Amino acid sequence: MTERGKIVSRQNERIREAKKLGQRKYREQRGLFLVEGVRLVEEALAAGAVEQLFFTERLLASPRGQVLVSRAEARGVQLFACSEGVLVELTDTVQAQGVVAVARKPSWPQPAPGVLVIADEIQDPGNMGALLRTALGAGVQGLFVVKGSVDLYSPKVLRASMGAIFQLPNWPVERQEVLAFLEKTGAALVAADLEQAEDFWQVAYPQNLAVVIGNEARGVHPSFRQRADLVVRIPLVGPVESLNASVAAGVLLYEILRQHRCSSADSVL
Amino acid sequence: MTERGKIVSRQNERIREAKKLGQRKYREQRGLFLVEGVRLVEEALAAGAVEQLFFTERLLASPRGQVLVSRAEARGVQLFACSEGVLVELTDTVQAQGVVAVARKPSWPQPAPGVLVIADEIQDPGNMGALLRTALGAGVQGLFVVKGSVDLYSPKVLRASMGAIFQLPNWPVERQEVLAFLEKTGAALVAADLEQAEDFWQVAYPQNLAVVIGNEARGVHPSFRQRADLVVRIPLVGPVESLNASVAAGVLLYEILRQHRCSSADSVL
Repeated sequence: MTERGKIVSRQNERIREAKKLGQRKYREQRGLFLVEGVRLVEEALAAGAVEQLFFTERLLASPRGQVLVSRAEARGVQLFACSEGVLVELTDTVQAQGVVAVARKPSWPQPAPGVLVIADEIQDPGNMGALLRTALGAGVQGLFVVKGSVDLYSPKVLRASMGAIFQLPNWPVERQEVLAFLEKTGAALVAADLEQAEDFWQVAYPQNLAVVIGNEARGVHPSFRQRADLVVRIPLVGPVESLNASVAAGVLLYEILRQHRCSSADSVL
Repeated sequence: MTERGKIVSRQNERIREAKKLGQRKYREQRGLFLVEGVRLVEEALAAGAVEQLFFTERLLASPRGQVLVSRAEARGVQLFACSEGVLVELTDTVQAQGVVAVARKPSWPQPAPGVLVIADEIQDPGNMGALLRTALGAGVQGLFVVKGSVDLYSPKVLRASMGAIFQLPNWPVERQEVLAFLEKTGAALVAADLEQAEDFWQVAYPQNLAVVIGNEARGVHPSFRQRADLVVRIPLVGPVESLNASVAAGVLLYEILRQHRCSSADSVL
C-alpha cells in the first residue's frame, strides 16, 4: 500500500474534507460520515458503505488490519496511507486503531408495516446507540428518528450501536410524517407513560405497530401521547423516576416479540 | 453560611482529603465517596449519607440550592463554602452546579431471599449505573457486585444510576461467596447465554433466584454458567452479537416480574 504515497500533512485536501465530517452539518450536506476503529470499519465495509479508507502503519501491524485493507481494495475503496499525526485529525477517540473510513449513509427503502420504533428526540448518544442495537436484536423493521434527536452518525452513537447502524433501516422524520404514516398504514401507536396506563404485559399488541421512545427528560411528546392507540406503563417497583430510554425500549420490544412469537400453548403463563 | 469563612486554597486540608476520594483505593479504605451536583446530593442527603458539603456561591444563587444547604445544616452536615477554583478540585464534570458532598457508603443488611442480581465484572460505568436503576425499578432485593466490576461509587456510575445507588442494597463479593449464598438459601441461579438455551419467556421463574449479568466482553463466568439452574436465551432476531448489559438485565428482570405478578387469568397470553 505504501507505494501510493503517505499523507503527512494535516493541510492535505482529502484530510481537510474528511475532517469536516466531524460536524453534523457537513454529514447532512454530503450524506457521508466517519467510521473509526477496526470492528466498526469492518461492519461498514461489509455493508458496502465505505468510500475512502485512511490508515496508518499501526493498522498494517495486525493481520486483521491487513485483511481489512485488502478487502477494502478489492471493493474499490480509495486507500490513503497516513502518518499517525494526520489520522488523529479524523478521530474522536484514542482507540481508532490506526483506521478511519469515510462511509456513505445508506438510503433505506420506505418503511413497511410490522414493528417499528420512533426515537422521539433522544438526546444521549449512548442511549441512541443502545436503542439501535436493541431494536435490531428484537427484530424491529426500522427506526423513525424524529428531528431534534442526536445524530445517528455521530461517533458516539456509532460506537454504542456496535454496528447496528449499518443494519437497521432508519428514517429522519418530522413528527407529522410519522402521524401520516400511521394514518395511512393503520399501524397502532404504542406509547409508554408513567401514569394512568395498563401494565405493559396486560396489553395485546397487534402485528403492525410503532413504539414511541420519548425524550430522556420530557418523555413522550403530547402529539404522540394524544394519538396513541395503546398507552402502557412499565411498573416501577422501587423508588426510581424512570428507566433508561434504551432499557425501557428493550423491555417493551421483547414483550411485543414474546407475544408475537408465543401462542397460549407455548407460553409458561 | 458565609460567616464560616470561605475555603480559597487548594492546599486546604479538607479539600486535599476530599480530593483523595477521587481514587477508588481511598474510597475503599475510608468508606466515603464524592457526590456531585444538586440532584444527586439531594438524594444522598435524603438517604442520610452526607457527612460534608462543599459549595460555592453558584449553589446559593438558586432557591433549590439554598434549600439544599439548609437541609444539610439541619441534619448536622459539616458545611464548607469554597471558591469555584477550589471546588473544581473535587469534581469530575463541569456540571457540578457548585456543590460536592462527601458521603458515607451505606452498609446494607445481609441479602434476604427474593429476586437478586449478580453484576459479574461489569466494566462500563454507564452499564453499571443503568443496571442499578433498572434493578431498583424492577423491584429486586439487591445486587451482588463481583470483585473486578467497576466501582459503584465512581462518579460516572453515580451519575448513570440517577441516585439508585442510595436505594438499592448492594454487596461487594467474591464469586465463591455468591455460590455459598445460593447453596445456603436454595435460590436458583439464572444465567443468560446465547447458545443451547430456552427463550427466556419459556422458563418458569421461582420466587427465590439470582440473575447473573455477565461481563460485557466475556459474558457469564464459567463458574456461574456451570452452576446455573436455569440457562435462558434472549433471542436476537437481527444481526447483533448481544444486547447491552443493562438492556439484557431489564428484559430478564421484567419478564420475571411479569411472571411473579401475573396469574394465568391476568395475562393476555
